Amino acid sequence: MNFLEEKIVKEGIVKEGNVLKVDSFLNHQMDIELFNDMGKEWKKRFAGKNINKILTIEASGIGIACIVAQHFGVPVVFAKKSKSINLEGDMYTAEVESFTHKNKNQVIVAKKFLSEEDHILLIDDFLANGCALQGLIQIVQSAGATVEGIGIAIEKGFQTGGKIIRNLGYQLESLAIVDDMNAATGEIVFREQ
Amino acid sequence: MNFLEEKIVKEGIVKEGNVLKVDSFLNHQMDIELFNDMGKEWKKRFAGKNINKILTIEASGIGIACIVAQHFGVPVVFAKKSKSINLEGDMYTAEVESFTHKNKNQVIVAKKFLSEEDHILLIDDFLANGCALQGLIQIVQSAGATVEGIGIAIEKGFQTGGKIIRNLGYQLESLAIVDDMNAATGEIVFREQ
Repeated sequence: MNFLEEKIVKEGIVKEGNVLKVDSFLNHQMDIELFNDMGKEWKKRFAGKNINKILTIEASGIGIACIVAQHFGVPVVFAKKSKSINLEGDMYTAEVESFTHKNKNQVIVAKKFLSEEDHILLIDDFLANGCALQGLIQIVQSAGATVEGIGIAIEKGFQTGGKIIRNLGYQLESLAIVDDMNAATGEIVFREQ
Repeated sequence: MNFLEEKIVKEGIVKEGNVLKVDSFLNHQMDIELFNDMGKEWKKRFAGKNINKILTIEASGIGIACIVAQHFGVPVVFAKKSKSINLEGDMYTAEVESFTHKNKNQVIVAKKFLSEEDHILLIDDFLANGCALQGLIQIVQSAGATVEGIGIAIEKGFQTGGKIIRNLGYQLESLAIVDDMNAATGEIVFREQ
């Protein structure tokens, strides 16, 4: 087991409905040292890639993306989930469905922050059905920018998102892939990587 | 002018309706080096304070809080703005009104992440009428925890939030206080600190 899998086993809680609660270190309380370890690992896995910007999505991707950005020496852009009066001018948008919140959101990035010169690393905390990620990829493509890679903390390997994204040819690096989990026993099975 | 005021003058845009757009470096695209400079400055201003946790609020506080946390060696908790099916068990809540989005939100922190042993640094990107901040203070107090200090990137000094918070006796350290701004000329007047 790697450092993230160990942390998940130690602090994660499996709930009914395919919910893996990791709110003590990933998406409510945030373990900054762990995020730095994730940054080091992705820096290794994306070695040689020409990355000049990280794109993530609010809210729980932001903290990870900012810490990881230090390992690549690049700025972060976070996609917003609802139209704000402070967001003006031309925007790239995509529609995504949230597994957690059971609703649809417009995902928005101001056009001025993405251009065809950009080489993007996408970062997010979870990958399940892949809707959010596909929205981000769509936005990067709309800008004529390049997706150099995708870093996910925890992939639910028993859902289809990872397979779809890999089949599209992207380098998807999930630090922990949960292939099975059992709410009754609390057991979590990780994919060998 | 300090480093943040210089950045605001260089890249900020004053809009009608008391809107200061700083989305190129603070709350849409994020300048991680700048956030590190902010962390260094707050570490100086809160020297000697016994801080063991940072509390912020989604979404635009998260990135700043995570980078700043590295300067204090502490974890971050971010308050959530809407009830999620992944948030269970006992929660502290407060109701806050958003200036930007013109709506009311429940602000939520799981009880297990705040206790009376906690000494909290509150971090956020903007302070205007102070509603969000008062919600966070209320949550910290509900937990019996201590607010050791409050770090704000940009305070709108012509609104009442800063005055109210300081009158309550909190050490509020805003790195840039805008006392006046003019959408017609683009001029920004900072308070001498």
